[in-house]
Amino acid sequence: MGNTFGHLFRITTFGESHGGGVGVVIDGCPPRLEISAADIQQELDRRRPGQSKITTPRKETDTCEIVSGVFEGKTLGTPITVLVRNKDTRPQDYDEMARTYRPSHADATYDAKYGIRNWQGGGRSSARETIGRVAAGAIAKKILKLVAGVEIVGYVKRIQDLEATIDPNTVTLAQVESNIVRCPDAEAAERLIDRIEAVRDQGDSIGGVVECVARQVPKGLGSPVFDKLEADLAKAVMSLPASKGFEIGSGFAGTLLTGSQHNDEFYRDEAGEIRTRTNRSGGTQGGIANGENIIIRVAFKPTATIRKEQRTVSHTGEETVLAGKGRHDPCVLPRAVPMVEAMMALVLCDHLLRHQAQCQLLQP
Amino acid sequence: MGNTFGHLFRITTFGESHGGGVGVVIDGCPPRLEISAADIQQELDRRRPGQSKITTPRKETDTCEIVSGVFEGKTLGTPITVLVRNKDTRPQDYDEMARTYRPSHADATYDAKYGIRNWQGGGRSSARETIGRVAAGAIAKKILKLVAGVEIVGYVKRIQDLEATIDPNTVTLAQVESNIVRCPDAEAAERLIDRIEAVRDQGDSIGGVVECVARQVPKGLGSPVFDKLEADLAKAVMSLPASKGFEIGSGFAGTLLTGSQHNDEFYRDEAGEIRTRTNRSGGTQGGIANGENIIIRVAFKPTATIRKEQRTVSHTGEETVLAGKGRHDPCVLPRAVPMVEAMMALVLCDHLLRHQAQCQLLQP
Amino acid sequence: MGNTFGHLFRITTFGESHGGGVGVVIDGCPPRLEISAADIQQELDRRRPGQSKITTPRKETDTCEIVSGVFEGKTLGTPITVLVRNKDTRPQDYDEMARTYRPSHADATYDAKYGIRNWQGGGRSSARETIGRVAAGAIAKKILKLVAGVEIVGYVKRIQDLEATIDPNTVTLAQVESNIVRCPDAEAAERLIDRIEAVRDQGDSIGGVVECVARQVPKGLGSPVFDKLEADLAKAVMSLPASKGFEIGSGFAGTLLTGSQHNDEFYRDEAGEIRTRTNRSGGTQGGIANGENIIIRVAFKPTATIRKEQRTVSHTGEETVLAGKGRHDPCVLPRAVPMVEAMMALVLCDHLLRHQAQCQLLQP
Amino acid sequence: MGNTFGHLFRITTFGESHGGGVGVVIDGCPPRLEISAADIQQELDRRRPGQSKITTPRKETDTCEIVSGVFEGKTLGTPITVLVRNKDTRPQDYDEMARTYRPSHADATYDAKYGIRNWQGGGRSSARETIGRVAAGAIAKKILKLVAGVEIVGYVKRIQDLEATIDPNTVTLAQVESNIVRCPDAEAAERLIDRIEAVRDQGDSIGGVVECVARQVPKGLGSPVFDKLEADLAKAVMSLPASKGFEIGSGFAGTLLTGSQHNDEFYRDEAGEIRTRTNRSGGTQGGIANGENIIIRVAFKPTATIRKEQRTVSHTGEETVLAGKGRHDPCVLPRAVPMVEAMMALVLCDHLLRHQAQCQLLQP
Repeated sequence: MGNTFGHLFRITTFGESHGGGVGVVIDGCPPRLEISAADIQQELDRRRPGQSKITTPRKETDTCEIVSGVFEGKTLGTPITVLVRNKDTRPQDYDEMARTYRPSHADATYDAKYGIRNWQGGGRSSARETIGRVAAGAIAKKILKLVAGVEIVGYVKRIQDLEATIDPNTVTLAQVESNIVRCPDAEAAERLIDRIEAVRDQGDSIGGVVECVARQVPKGLGSPVFDKLEADLAKAVMSLPASKGFEIGSGFAGTLLTGSQHNDEFYRDEAGEIRTRTNRSGGTQGGIANGENIIIRVAFKPTATIRKEQRTVSHTGEETVLAGKGRHDPCVLPRAVPMVEAMMALVLCDHLLRHQAQCQLLQP
Repeated sequence: MGNTFGHLFRITTFGESHGGGVGVVIDGCPPRLEISAADIQQELDRRRPGQSKITTPRKETDTCEIVSGVFEGKTLGTPITVLVRNKDTRPQDYDEMARTYRPSHADATYDAKYGIRNWQGGGRSSARETIGRVAAGAIAKKILKLVAGVEIVGYVKRIQDLEATIDPNTVTLAQVESNIVRCPDAEAAERLIDRIEAVRDQGDSIGGVVECVARQVPKGLGSPVFDKLEADLAKAVMSLPASKGFEIGSGFAGTLLTGSQHNDEFYRDEAGEIRTRTNRSGGTQGGIANGENIIIRVAFKPTATIRKEQRTVSHTGEETVLAGKGRHDPCVLPRAVPMVEAMMALVLCDHLLRHQAQCQLLQP
Repeated sequence: MGNTFGHLFRITTFGESHGGGVGVVIDGCPPRLEISAADIQQELDRRRPGQSKITTPRKETDTCEIVSGVFEGKTLGTPITVLVRNKDTRPQDYDEMARTYRPSHADATYDAKYGIRNWQGGGRSSARETIGRVAAGAIAKKILKLVAGVEIVGYVKRIQDLEATIDPNTVTLAQVESNIVRCPDAEAAERLIDRIEAVRDQGDSIGGVVECVARQVPKGLGSPVFDKLEADLAKAVMSLPASKGFEIGSGFAGTLLTGSQHNDEFYRDEAGEIRTRTNRSGGTQGGIANGENIIIRVAFKPTATIRKEQRTVSHTGEETVLAGKGRHDPCVLPRAVPMVEAMMALVLCDHLLRHQAQCQLLQP
Repeated sequence: MGNTFGHLFRITTFGESHGGGVGVVIDGCPPRLEISAADIQQELDRRRPGQSKITTPRKETDTCEIVSGVFEGKTLGTPITVLVRNKDTRPQDYDEMARTYRPSHADATYDAKYGIRNWQGGGRSSARETIGRVAAGAIAKKILKLVAGVEIVGYVKRIQDLEATIDPNTVTLAQVESNIVRCPDAEAAERLIDRIEAVRDQGDSIGGVVECVARQVPKGLGSPVFDKLEADLAKAVMSLPASKGFEIGSGFAGTLLTGSQHNDEFYRDEAGEIRTRTNRSGGTQGGIANGENIIIRVAFKPTATIRKEQRTVSHTGEETVLAGKGRHDPCVLPRAVPMVEAMMALVLCDHLLRHQAQCQLLQP
């Protein structure tokens, strides 16, 4: 029962990397929203393998079909099902996986939990599962934009020790998409690409940090106490493959400051709106959006699959060695950007509906 | 609807800092477990204010009553309600709060969300709400210990830039409780206490990092894909007041390594068990426990309430200044330790029941 | 995890008949609603024992305390906790229950499920648990009335074979409360009271049917496909103690008609509203409110506790006989009326919030 | 968010009668269960249209595909997706539905709720949606049989006033399937078939009662207080199209008895098991299975679609007349039997897992 996310805008993803396909059922979507397969495909194309020289060469067009919930271009209010068939599967590449546990992959833990595993690929633990999330996120983004003008922009902030300089308050999707590494600092982007290529050529892999900002988030979103915005955002992105850490606002660096340095003082802006002079809180206080930009960062570990030889064991416990032969990304970050955006959109859209239900029923 | 946590071992907390009291209803607890008010009180005493010279002087005994669900010292399988009455409230201390928004507190966002707020204190956003969590955590810990021998130990790992040296694989509760700052590195503990006192005397506050380890966690706990252990743990601790960041295993530092440096190679130990040589994964792979120690870290910001004067606005938007008069902690970390442990216990206990339900029904 | 009801307006009840008390936590209540202990007490008084000569003589004032969630007479949007302490308990009356299973009670099944039971009374299976439901229902009714003018009126429709004549379209609360059996057909009411007294004097008990109507329900409430209004209403009332059957609209009698007799033809009324000429559907079509009156009926079995001697077994399986000594109702129906109303209010209020969330976010 | 059912064995159905297809995602299924498309198809064939002369002539093979969650013939523990494509659709038959509201159908209420509707057929309110339920029920039945030997048998008990004589304690699936009306009383079956044909020839429709029994249900299943077995069963079947009433055990007839007549006395059988002499409770006490047969009855109204002319209104509110042209069942009951069985299986399987989680973790 861990394949459903969200309370009102609720998604259930399904599918393994090898088999009939992967997809998502979205329940609770408002009716009469214009949506097309093209809207969804646009986001899937940002996620798909084979999109550039620094991603896995695995070729999947990841073409989506809307199976239900949309009629004459509009949502019906009933469950929306998006299905993507699996195509370019080469089980022979994965043959060794039937017998050998890949280090820092989920082969061994799936076997430990379920006593069975689809060894033709990563199965359910494959990043291919995120297709359903990105598809649902495309719809969530559209609702957020339409109802409240919310903009969500993610980008690669750092790869290994190479950090980019980006202003979250002004960065645009066009800037992010202007290069294949999705780093809107043009100068840094080149260095990042070079680093990824160098590491790939060594048969190794690297990780880094994705930053994501949501702007124009309505004040009041978020549900104390367990469903604070930062709590739901943390869960959302820590459920992505390869994520190892989460921060909001000042994050870990904020622990070095004193309270008088860290606190966000309030003031009243020219429009009469209560604002904060700084944004170390990262857009929430007490788990509720305060109208400032929501800024999160996610740490992604280096890709577990590498060509370099590693020691490991077989599923029967024999010690052995393994060198990855499957096609894989030397660095997941460029493709992780749309995943992080999607998860942020899903959280905010769910809370938009929740806030609408509880706090906008009785008129003040 | 954000006041419930957990799927099978499910808690609902209630109560504001000022008013009738705070507490928790625990639904789904296994029957026939021996539990007493004393078991719960022991953990509440680690959390309560006024416990040492470096915590808030606010005096609350936080004495708990078990209202329901326990009969003749054993759980009935029905909802367990734990109630703690509010006692040492001085509304006059908080009088200014009726009118003035405290920077980096939730006063303004609660008003924005609900259009009403219990201004006699932090209301529902007060850390007092965590009493219910710690009470429930005491029961979760007992189940985990009894069924699987799980040990959960949290401690202060760092305050500002002062980092302690602690081995998560061997640290004990007794070591943690041997000093008032809950840092089981005796030498570092003294420096931490000095720093807290110095900052407090300046009318300021500081933050830091709590680390928490769970040992002997059964392989297989965790539910892909959204309810990965790390996702649920992230949500759990990011819902605690003042938390700004979460890491598991290598966390953000892991992004500096390559895959060949980061991967945890498998081997077979003397008992024939499949183990990993390193533990950069932090005890989970693909969201499922692999039997290694689960290690997480949580960043807590400096306490928002400080005596130093700060600029802010009133609830009607007038600019003003504020200097905290209420009694507060100069550093939340010593009292946050049992909170982090409780949240980790709640997540693991819930997944223990979930795993029991899905994966131990059909015998292999 | 079966002690929570509702998705957005969500209640969790707790407590056994003997012990610290019983109550409810309500999560998701809209903020700024005026509510007082008196509002809740009014409904609890309709439910409490000892209210008339035809109910159990057990004396409980069932005085409620609002522990949390209300400030200066208004809801905060945070969890509302209502607590009622247990008072007039005479464990000696129930002494035999420690050893002997009462026929058609839950003593044996609780033991079978949990391996433990609070034998001082009905424990969690006692109708005393419904205090929390009725308290929450009082708040739900207030919201429904305020937001949409919804009126909910329940009454005793039949006891054994004695059926009353009541028009659900016009019946009022005042009529229901005009006699102790809560049957707004004055002539029938007398016969019902006589029958109850006669059966009580024989040491026996009887059951019957409660009918409940909701008027002015906004078109559109209800969520296909599993959370159809009739499905949620059925669950709501079938979770009440002693209920054995549920009907909406034509119910079982409707199975005797043909489609052409049963269908509700549409017409347009003077106000231009689409209406149905008949209401065999009972106010919903496809699980969604159609604006007509929602009419349900609930069958309650005769009270299981009787003074007459019955054969049974002890908890160790010895055959024995039992004659009820505890104080009990010879007929639960008069006190069941506010329970059925409460459950109907909880379902409708939850769906009011759900509809608000999904269908009133995007403006047409 | 009303398209998900169950807490641990949790299904989400999707799809409209016209469009890409219908199906189900099943989350929480135990791993390593042998399951094939043929297992599922067998149940779908009992539900499909065109199966006999007394069902709708609409021809759909309803061939299912298992898209995910099964590998080499066994469940993986991951979401199982079953998809059935829509085939024999004749939108022209439904053309009038774009403009005219069918009496006692959900056309008008869907429009009122969502402001949009797939008018090519019943859309989401079509009984075609139950394909997903029946598919999931096939798996639930298999688990129940395997783990506990549970047998679930449904049958037509009554059509209009024609009631069959059937012993729920001994009736078999083979007897049910021995005739096209699914009434295991051979003599009655003929009369039922004649009645259905006569009514169909008049362009009209009829309803009746399905009874369903579950045998060998383990003592202890069911979760007080809201998730009592009878409450969950009531919701389950009242969410089926055309259902108007629910009973368990003695049901509405039980209200005519006194307590001394109605109570189920306990005794100890030869095997030492505590049993009840009668079963007016219908297999549960206090919402928990007592080990006796669970017997429920469901009232289904006459099919709303009829050939006879009826008065109605158009979606713009003009008064008009309508005569059904689409292909439809003159009586839903023969095809409702597998639906009721499926819903009962889903409830019991969910509670089997819930009981396993809460009550079988700590060994007595």
